Amino acid sequence: MPSRDLRSALAELADIDHAAKLMAWDQQTKMPAGGAQERGEAMATIERIAHELLTDEALGELLETAGEEDAAIARVMRRDRDRAVRVPSELAADLARAAAEGATAWQRARAESDFAAFAPYLERNVELCRRYAACFPESEHPYDALLDRHEPEMTTAEVRSVFGRLREGLVPLIETLTARSAPPQLTASFPAAEQRALALEMLRALGFDDEHWRLDKTVHPFLAAIAPTDVRVTTRFAEDSLAGIFGTLHEMGHGLYERQVDPALARTMVGTGVSSGVHESQSRLWENLVGRGEPFWRHWLPRAQARFPEALGAISLDEFLRAVNAVRPSLIRVEADEATYSLHIILRFELEVALVEGTLAVRDLPEAWNARTRELLGIEVPDDAHGVLQDVHWASGTIGYFPTYALGNLIGGQLWERAHTDIPDLDERIGAGELAPLREWLGQHVHRHGAKFTSAELLQRTVGGPIAVGPFLSYLKGKLSQVYGLEL
Amino acid sequence: MPSRDLRSALAELADIDHAAKLMAWDQQTKMPAGGAQERGEAMATIERIAHELLTDEALGELLETAGEEDAAIARVMRRDRDRAVRVPSELAADLARAAAEGATAWQRARAESDFAAFAPYLERNVELCRRYAACFPESEHPYDALLDRHEPEMTTAEVRSVFGRLREGLVPLIETLTARSAPPQLTASFPAAEQRALALEMLRALGFDDEHWRLDKTVHPFLAAIAPTDVRVTTRFAEDSLAGIFGTLHEMGHGLYERQVDPALARTMVGTGVSSGVHESQSRLWENLVGRGEPFWRHWLPRAQARFPEALGAISLDEFLRAVNAVRPSLIRVEADEATYSLHIILRFELEVALVEGTLAVRDLPEAWNARTRELLGIEVPDDAHGVLQDVHWASGTIGYFPTYALGNLIGGQLWERAHTDIPDLDERIGAGELAPLREWLGQHVHRHGAKFTSAELLQRTVGGPIAVGPFLSYLKGKLSQVYGLEL
Repeated sequence: MPSRDLRSALAELADIDHAAKLMAWDQQTKMPAGGAQERGEAMATIERIAHELLTDEALGELLETAGEEDAAIARVMRRDRDRAVRVPSELAADLARAAAEGATAWQRARAESDFAAFAPYLERNVELCRRYAACFPESEHPYDALLDRHEPEMTTAEVRSVFGRLREGLVPLIETLTARSAPPQLTASFPAAEQRALALEMLRALGFDDEHWRLDKTVHPFLAAIAPTDVRVTTRFAEDSLAGIFGTLHEMGHGLYERQVDPALARTMVGTGVSSGVHESQSRLWENLVGRGEPFWRHWLPRAQARFPEALGAISLDEFLRAVNAVRPSLIRVEADEATYSLHIILRFELEVALVEGTLAVRDLPEAWNARTRELLGIEVPDDAHGVLQDVHWASGTIGYFPTYALGNLIGGQLWERAHTDIPDLDERIGAGELAPLREWLGQHVHRHGAKFTSAELLQRTVGGPIAVGPFLSYLKGKLSQVYGLEL
Repeated sequence: MPSRDLRSALAELADIDHAAKLMAWDQQTKMPAGGAQERGEAMATIERIAHELLTDEALGELLETAGEEDAAIARVMRRDRDRAVRVPSELAADLARAAAEGATAWQRARAESDFAAFAPYLERNVELCRRYAACFPESEHPYDALLDRHEPEMTTAEVRSVFGRLREGLVPLIETLTARSAPPQLTASFPAAEQRALALEMLRALGFDDEHWRLDKTVHPFLAAIAPTDVRVTTRFAEDSLAGIFGTLHEMGHGLYERQVDPALARTMVGTGVSSGVHESQSRLWENLVGRGEPFWRHWLPRAQARFPEALGAISLDEFLRAVNAVRPSLIRVEADEATYSLHIILRFELEVALVEGTLAVRDLPEAWNARTRELLGIEVPDDAHGVLQDVHWASGTIGYFPTYALGNLIGGQLWERAHTDIPDLDERIGAGELAPLREWLGQHVHRHGAKFTSAELLQRTVGGPIAVGPFLSYLKGKLSQVYGLEL
């Protein structure tokens, strides 16, 4: 029974991945700091074992002879395996080591806003990423191979084209809104315990239960799906804003994707989200398209007011929506609003492509960053800590990931439009506090398939076409017109 | 460099063990219940990978050619490996499966006090343990091989001899004390949060710091040393007694052992406690010899009184010591006092040896249990839930472990005696709240060696002789004479 053998091999890989994910979750939520070095060693060993199993020749043969019922699974695995085999294990080890060293150097450099101290590490990461890209000489563009690690089968040319249209739509919109005075921010204090209680109430409405979920504190929030039956949201509540509430909805969006994968795909390595872009579509959809919308707060604002009577007692729904949807070009990506966010991504995409192409040198990066921030967002970068040093991605060797955040916005817009067609009273349901209809729709059309289809195939099945800019821009214009009370 | 290769192989095994221990800790402290099945699968896979690596021929060759500096490590590993190789992997898998099924069946059977429902599972476990023992036909006694899994190189004959002397010492002592009226128990309510705070204060005095330790809640407390730099105490505080305080000291004793192993032994597979018996000596020493002693409470009773003014405000140190050292034959091992505890162990040892020998049939076990309880403890067993069904060990295939609890009592007594010789003012130091001198003495004489020496070698080095009954009995008589105010 070759099908049985293939399933065993995939289950073994999935089990190792289970251990790796638990180790990573624990590292960021529970592990005493003193355990860091041994954890790093143990994680590296587990990674290495997984890589050896994936590149094992016997698995290759099993994949070649996979039967009909395992065809979809075998296709994805064959692809992952073929790519893993192409990268010499020395290079893989160098990439991992340079990533760890780079992340440590970055923390110091950011604290002191000292790009020069960080530059050698970034040069090393760029160099290694170029060597990684060179393992795939058939690619049209060297950045293709890096992008493919996070958004399989998407190309640099496609992203360029999509981002061009996105920028064209966003820039005039943001200019119009920036010309008007920005809505007042929420400046009150929101006790963390109350934020947690409110967030948990929202998560439960979304499908969180104690049988399969956890909510823990961390410094940089993330979602860990140890298994489809064991999904862990992490979060951080700062008392000066409600950002933690939106962050929690974001991670829950990732979590629902993993939780709702077809149980038949469990322990096959395709029982997980298909790509970073589709994953971000889920998190950003719940955070923004649902979570910053009028229907959502129609239900939840009275509940928030009961928990924060001083801060929100006197606010109207309109005022609240203006505050949480204010468009203001700003320096820091993770604090950016829904409209300007994608411009932060476009900037990073352009610069990392140039680094990989070799048309931009690392030493010239800060200047390029500041100039492009001026052009795209119209603001001045005061120092590198608030500019080129703000994100950990490049420091940890993650080149090729940034685009997926903006692709997620676009896919989210497409799914949102389609869900409204399929569920005509969707807004009314959300306004009544019912989040299950959308969750179930996403489960049916996106989540259950796991990684069985490529992102492109999934989009074709679900929205009937490729990734597109229109739905996200229409959604954004519609919402902001309403919030700002003007025709955009 | 063969030594380098050996170290890499050992490090790989240690890293896999690191993952396995984290998965087990998480399972019992943090994991949402719904994740149990996938966790079970993932843990089985990780176990299997570890077993394959341990029995790999290349490791065998490295061990044969190990250099001088790795001699001690190679000796222990060779031993573990030779034993692992002797057990067919089918039998290992059968043992693991039967253990999991037995533990599940036991939970139901205990809840309903239904031994008949459990008997087939126990028969299966006994049968598999006999098959395991048969893999070591050179043993004097079939139980030797089972004992060896937990107390390497100890034999059934030795345990019999030691337990014979222990029983002779304990029985008359207990009879004398039982003839007198038992001291009053503490019957007040102790809020769990205050117990936790007091326990944590004690742990900090013992060496707990947030950089390397955690304290978490669980149902059945245990200690998880994920790494020597990442040690996790688990505990449970019931409000009707201070048992959770003593339990926390117990687990901390295990933790200090792992925390104080020589860092040079990290990631070698011998950077851990040498045997269950020596491990139990550490936990029971801190729980009982320190933790139920007059010097300890001279310092800690005022602190406990401040936290539990209603329950303890009016109690004297003498009254308190009488309450926490009361000797009363009782049904449940885990609730037994320090004097009667070892009789519970002797009973289990005798019965499990008889099961393995085939001189006692599983169907006759409840009757044998009840009869022996009557003889050894002088009490009647009302039902199997309070008798033969009370412990999970046999249900989960753990035959050969029980003796190590009582061996731990004995070794603890020997170390306690020796520490008093080496640190003449030890009681005064403990009475002043200083626990570091004893901790450091144990670190120096026991902990730092990890599993480099056998238990017998370690005892020879530390107390100058083999395991002995005398020191524990003298300690116990001395303490109980003082507590009960009579000459024992």
